[in-house]
Amino acid sequence: MIREAALLTDLYQLTMLQAYHREDMHAEASFEFFVRTLPTTRNFLIAAGLEQLLDFLEGFQFSAEECEWLRTTGLFAGDFIDYLGHLRFTGAVHAMPEGTFCFPNEPIVRVTAPLPEAQIIETRLINLLQYQTMIASKAVRAVLAADGRTLVDFGLRRAHGAEAGLLAARASYLAGFSGTSNVLAGKCYGIPLFGTMAHSYVMAHDTEIEAFIRFAEALPEQTVLLIDTYDTLEAAKLLAQQAQSFASRGLRIRGVRLDSGDLAALSVSTREILDRGGLKGSEIFASGDLDEYAIRRLLAVDAPIDGFGVGTQLATSADAPALNCAYKLEEYAGCPRRKRSPGRATLPGRKQVFRTCDGQGVMLHDVLELCGAEGPGEPLLCEVMRGGRRLEAPEPLAAVRARVAEQRERLPRALASIDTAGAFPVRIGPALSDLAQAMEQSGR
Amino acid sequence: MIREAALLTDLYQLTMLQAYHREDMHAEASFEFFVRTLPTTRNFLIAAGLEQLLDFLEGFQFSAEECEWLRTTGLFAGDFIDYLGHLRFTGAVHAMPEGTFCFPNEPIVRVTAPLPEAQIIETRLINLLQYQTMIASKAVRAVLAADGRTLVDFGLRRAHGAEAGLLAARASYLAGFSGTSNVLAGKCYGIPLFGTMAHSYVMAHDTEIEAFIRFAEALPEQTVLLIDTYDTLEAAKLLAQQAQSFASRGLRIRGVRLDSGDLAALSVSTREILDRGGLKGSEIFASGDLDEYAIRRLLAVDAPIDGFGVGTQLATSADAPALNCAYKLEEYAGCPRRKRSPGRATLPGRKQVFRTCDGQGVMLHDVLELCGAEGPGEPLLCEVMRGGRRLEAPEPLAAVRARVAEQRERLPRALASIDTAGAFPVRIGPALSDLAQAMEQSGR
Repeated sequence: MIREAALLTDLYQLTMLQAYHREDMHAEASFEFFVRTLPTTRNFLIAAGLEQLLDFLEGFQFSAEECEWLRTTGLFAGDFIDYLGHLRFTGAVHAMPEGTFCFPNEPIVRVTAPLPEAQIIETRLINLLQYQTMIASKAVRAVLAADGRTLVDFGLRRAHGAEAGLLAARASYLAGFSGTSNVLAGKCYGIPLFGTMAHSYVMAHDTEIEAFIRFAEALPEQTVLLIDTYDTLEAAKLLAQQAQSFASRGLRIRGVRLDSGDLAALSVSTREILDRGGLKGSEIFASGDLDEYAIRRLLAVDAPIDGFGVGTQLATSADAPALNCAYKLEEYAGCPRRKRSPGRATLPGRKQVFRTCDGQGVMLHDVLELCGAEGPGEPLLCEVMRGGRRLEAPEPLAAVRARVAEQRERLPRALASIDTAGAFPVRIGPALSDLAQAMEQSGR
Repeated sequence: MIREAALLTDLYQLTMLQAYHREDMHAEASFEFFVRTLPTTRNFLIAAGLEQLLDFLEGFQFSAEECEWLRTTGLFAGDFIDYLGHLRFTGAVHAMPEGTFCFPNEPIVRVTAPLPEAQIIETRLINLLQYQTMIASKAVRAVLAADGRTLVDFGLRRAHGAEAGLLAARASYLAGFSGTSNVLAGKCYGIPLFGTMAHSYVMAHDTEIEAFIRFAEALPEQTVLLIDTYDTLEAAKLLAQQAQSFASRGLRIRGVRLDSGDLAALSVSTREILDRGGLKGSEIFASGDLDEYAIRRLLAVDAPIDGFGVGTQLATSADAPALNCAYKLEEYAGCPRRKRSPGRATLPGRKQVFRTCDGQGVMLHDVLELCGAEGPGEPLLCEVMRGGRRLEAPEPLAAVRARVAEQRERLPRALASIDTAGAFPVRIGPALSDLAQAMEQSGR
């Protein structure tokens, strides 16, 4: 794993900064991070990753060692490297609170700072905001499908590296998962930990029942036994036969896990066997390449499954492993800016998102408008950093999780589904529309 | 970002270890890491990630702080946490050298160690080996499609976190890319750095030509100008008009980058405009959500593009963002072990892969056989770690890259394509087959 490094950036950020330094271009710039379009299998996004971004900005600096290395590349002038050594992030950040539901083209984060500072942070900003936003937006779909059942992140092993595994646990928990198998995420973020046992444990013992007994002895209160190593239903019968013997030794079988085969059929048979064996209180936990669709299919046939472990599909957002997102210059030195590349044109100026809800709090529509202009409803972006310092202590993850749960209830019904719905209405306000038109006419 | 932490693991590894500790199960175990099936859009895999795994194993330990935290969870006995504090990896590793082309069911890495040591490393081992193997196997497809043109990794911003961005640069370089935009990857791995400029640089200036001139002044030898911010062909004409003025000031336009629109048509027109303007020596570089298929389409119509920046599709392996891989117990205390779960049964025992090639060195078939048994051809797994220490210094990345280039030439023709070919023959040797059959008959 790697420590936070200012050099974790694209080379062009440094070459552009060298040019800005030569040109003395240090006036204030505003950049906005937004998602251009939704993946076809998403009805909305959940903003996430802001706390990690603010950590990065507060700690941003090139270490002496990084500067020394830059000298060896021969790409940069000495005075520029000295300048980099003193560079800190001193700007302001406006952002949607983590857990806010959002839609295409809406600025999720706005950075306002001297141009070089707002530029040099681009790569890591996108890297941090995209991943957690993507994972939270994937995870909430499993929450919608699971209809209140326990969901646990099992994604670490197939996540793309260490940081992805850690942040996937955070993003899925804030989106409504019950916890994670990732121990470091439990330590770093206070996320509840869940775990069962692996096939290797069963295989390392001479018999399956011996493995079950030894595991229960070692972990008497948390015993969830994996029963598909050899034959799921035979293992369930074995447990049912031994239930009294377990109980007489003070061992409680909290549950079993199914990890392969026809989970719907196996869970029904397993439930019957466990119930007949006096293990009515034990839970059935399912895993094995599950996603929101598999969960829905299982629950549609009333599979008696109490909880799901979701791994690979969650931590890689497998059906949409990237968001079409960007961090674009919207204003420099007091003048609005825009890009006009075909298919990638941007809206100029610093923007706010205003959300209108009905009397029951259900989201009706959003309006994108210039900052300073009046908009209808509640503004979604708040100032969270000024002068390079957080304005408030990091928000507890539980508060973010509560925000998601609350906003989930306020989604229009069609959007609160894993089926693709029509787009949520996001309108352009009059002041923003006038500015875009004026710039269009003047050819800027 | 996060530092290497032993707690970056699944909770069940710790609960299983606690059980093993109670049961005094410390006999030698062998686990093998392999990929069960190929994604439909892969004909072969490239083994990668071994160096990072060996780093992890050599440094493996629970810190005092991690142990203290474990005490607070209430899940573990004090003597077990003391044991964890002293736990190191003391085992052996056999592995295919990085850059080896490989196929389903072939062990890529085998770990042999006291059972708890071989178990506790599972999660991070899969996390490290899967990602780089997946990315190298994706990247080589762009190499096959680009037919000798320059390929640069632009993936950092949309990679899943910091480590993914860093390791994607490494994995794509070893697979044959020319370099990366990721500065930290340049520093850590000595990978050549490439970079151009961003739209924001153009937008921050009052006119496009002013941006071009200032950038060329700041970086006179490396000037690659991004020309699609407003209108690609207008920008190309502007450059052609100014070519003499640039030259008279000692500024050389090394190339231009196209990042949007119809890259085939725009590259043809841009080439014509640049050539007419006396910029025949300048290169055209293309980017914008490219993958191996887009590269092939562009080259099929003879688009005059000299190099490609490949980002999101590469660093997320977007068409196959996870491998169906596993790390399975194959032997414990001298006895072969196997799992029989439907669809996930494994082959028992410690295995070697033997590769047979024809007289020209073209790969013909592989044979999976028990260690110790004779196999045909060259054995692919070598011992790389013993007693928890590397047997040799880390292999230079250039050597791994050369191995990939060499093995690419030795692939059967049908497999050396981005089109899906029939499976490469991987046979089961007689000794392994006999063992599997004997275990099947005895119901183990």
